[in-house]
Amino acid sequence: MRMYDIIKTKRDGGALTKEQIDFAVTGFTGGGIGEGQMAALAMAIWFNGMSERETAELTLAMARSGDSVDLSRFGTKTVDKHSTGGVGDKTSLVIMPIAASCGAVCAKMSGRGLGHTGGTADKLESIPGYKTELSTARFLEQAEKVGLVLATQSGNLTPADKKLYALRDMTATVDSLPLIASSIMSKKIASGAHSIVLDVKAGGGAFMKTADDARALARVMVDIGTRLGRKVRAVVTDMDTPLGTAVGNALEVREAVELLRGRGADDLKEVCFVLAENMLELSLGMGKDEAEKAVRDSVSSGRAYKKLCEWIAAQGGDLRCIDDVSLLPRAARVLEVKAEKSGFITAMDAEKIGRCAMSLGAGRLEKDMPIDFAAGIEMLKKTGEYISAGEPVARLYTNKNDAGNAEKLYLSALETADTPPEKRKIVIDIIE
Amino acid sequence: MRMYDIIKTKRDGGALTKEQIDFAVTGFTGGGIGEGQMAALAMAIWFNGMSERETAELTLAMARSGDSVDLSRFGTKTVDKHSTGGVGDKTSLVIMPIAASCGAVCAKMSGRGLGHTGGTADKLESIPGYKTELSTARFLEQAEKVGLVLATQSGNLTPADKKLYALRDMTATVDSLPLIASSIMSKKIASGAHSIVLDVKAGGGAFMKTADDARALARVMVDIGTRLGRKVRAVVTDMDTPLGTAVGNALEVREAVELLRGRGADDLKEVCFVLAENMLELSLGMGKDEAEKAVRDSVSSGRAYKKLCEWIAAQGGDLRCIDDVSLLPRAARVLEVKAEKSGFITAMDAEKIGRCAMSLGAGRLEKDMPIDFAAGIEMLKKTGEYISAGEPVARLYTNKNDAGNAEKLYLSALETADTPPEKRKIVIDIIE
Repeated sequence: MRMYDIIKTKRDGGALTKEQIDFAVTGFTGGGIGEGQMAALAMAIWFNGMSERETAELTLAMARSGDSVDLSRFGTKTVDKHSTGGVGDKTSLVIMPIAASCGAVCAKMSGRGLGHTGGTADKLESIPGYKTELSTARFLEQAEKVGLVLATQSGNLTPADKKLYALRDMTATVDSLPLIASSIMSKKIASGAHSIVLDVKAGGGAFMKTADDARALARVMVDIGTRLGRKVRAVVTDMDTPLGTAVGNALEVREAVELLRGRGADDLKEVCFVLAENMLELSLGMGKDEAEKAVRDSVSSGRAYKKLCEWIAAQGGDLRCIDDVSLLPRAARVLEVKAEKSGFITAMDAEKIGRCAMSLGAGRLEKDMPIDFAAGIEMLKKTGEYISAGEPVARLYTNKNDAGNAEKLYLSALETADTPPEKRKIVIDIIE
Repeated sequence: MRMYDIIKTKRDGGALTKEQIDFAVTGFTGGGIGEGQMAALAMAIWFNGMSERETAELTLAMARSGDSVDLSRFGTKTVDKHSTGGVGDKTSLVIMPIAASCGAVCAKMSGRGLGHTGGTADKLESIPGYKTELSTARFLEQAEKVGLVLATQSGNLTPADKKLYALRDMTATVDSLPLIASSIMSKKIASGAHSIVLDVKAGGGAFMKTADDARALARVMVDIGTRLGRKVRAVVTDMDTPLGTAVGNALEVREAVELLRGRGADDLKEVCFVLAENMLELSLGMGKDEAEKAVRDSVSSGRAYKKLCEWIAAQGGDLRCIDDVSLLPRAARVLEVKAEKSGFITAMDAEKIGRCAMSLGAGRLEKDMPIDFAAGIEMLKKTGEYISAGEPVARLYTNKNDAGNAEKLYLSALETADTPPEKRKIVIDIIE
């Protein structure tokens, strides 16, 4: 078998066999196939796509390229969740305690994030003492005991995906549906959960700008997982406006804690509840009504909150900061952003608000850059609300002496009008 | 400027600026841009093509990536010739002496060949003593004195093209019109001749299988050269059947010598004369009729043959082997191939005959592989001729003890029928 023929087949619009896909992935990961040939293949895939079968086989080849997590001892009760990423997305912090408190096993590997804020692991590290690096034994032990564990990837999970992603990032081949879908799903498959709920974001603050694009990605990922023997469901949710009221690591932990205490923004609650319901349906075989009720009860009874505390404590986090969220890292400076003119907020540009959080210190652009846990944004007014000129619309938190034009950037993200906007659906679709 | 944006622009069907093309070529040659990014760009070009302007700028960037030959002292009289390669193509050995004997200056750099037989430099080396490696000073001195010199590339000519070609060869991006054309023309531009005559082959034994494909390549190359200030003309010739009667290094030298002595196959003579006429038209400003007459006269008067001898002697070749071609390297074994059935030859598969020569030892598949100068094929019967079963149709020359199934391969290249085939045009088109 020659990589040349594999490239040529895809270039000419043909389909690759399982053997060809394995050959390319194994060779590239091992170093026998160089970046030139792999980049040519990636570009040929960018142009000519991949069938669902090919995409699933690429996913499997990458999932098998390194270590994988064996969660088989938990039977079919394990459930993972993945979000394609947005601004203010703290859903994992909410839905994992809900699902675990209902009997599902959430043993999740999470990466550190690049972008506006950190990833879920970064957010959790804003809780003093919380350890995200666990040995496999500790990871499984906690999954057994608490039903809930979240750690950064230990060992060598999906090295093929890491290497291919780095290459795609340099060669303008990131935005290819089969390559995006297989990249995400390879990590989910290697992470071992039997059920997977995907939160595919659509809108200005997401990778997929339209609902149709998000649906298409969702369908490919659901198909991959199903072909590879997992239960998968994708919830397509709106990310034109940031989710909830907080953007930033400690601020998002705080918002998640408050939601589990029964408070919190409606939009965030709606997305979290739908995701949690689907997690219960897949992992515990509940019907829709039963799952809905279980989710609501777990929050109103305080069981989900209790599960959150159990989880944080098991990983060394200081529970006093959960009990009293004002003890979480606090920024030295708080800037109050005031409305320049009156009117109804008709749109909030999630991407701009993300960049604003980034400029305050909440995110990182490159791996291993430090993150300011305290930095971020508290949105006081959201889409649909009326604001009067001079009224505070957000608080910006930062430890920087010079936050540049963060306030201006925030204000530029808001559109206003004399009449209120139509209400947007936050949960757009469910793909299964 | 970022290579990423250059790749993305081309991927999305846009045109690259001169600065972007220079950046990519310079970066790749210098090593700052890696194989991954360059391969992605090559594949994007494969899919989306390049405008004539972009192609010319790519050519110039590659031509300027290393040394170039300064032939300016010869004014506009310098003329180079390039053939896109075929089976039995010994035209350079014939037309350079013709053109030089008429007053043109032919100072040619020639590569060693990969394939069925060697390149022109390899063929010349079958003449004992002939030196293909000359210093630049020697090269120019001989051009001045003899008006004719052929050496292998000295110095560092078009390193960008060498590196890019090697990458394309691995990544299934060879067969792209702008990449083929710019690769060929970058070497011609760096080689310094004011006029360039291209012999673009069409047919089964050529890279371009149809006349239209060959015409398209010819047009792109003529356009490139014209944009870069050279006089260029392309002759599209038939390569369905091998050219002339000999395939193999010493055998082809012998055929060329015989043609310059006034003998030789009609098809070879026709192609050589048309090429030589065009060389004279471009380099000496002759009209068509004048050039035709000059070419015929140079051969019939023996001036072209004399120029050949002057040339070979100047580069150290043993003239006794030209005077008596039976002194050229001879193979230990001669196999006579006999017709299996009677009929008119309607087609000869040049590609198969090339492979047959290769199997006898006449060519090389990889750089630096030795070549057997004596090995090759003498075709006794060609397309249109009648053969009787049992009659010899070819002689195979080899020093191998086991020539495998060379005879069978040769026979399989012949198609016969009860009626003679229509005569094919050997010179298909002239593009200027």
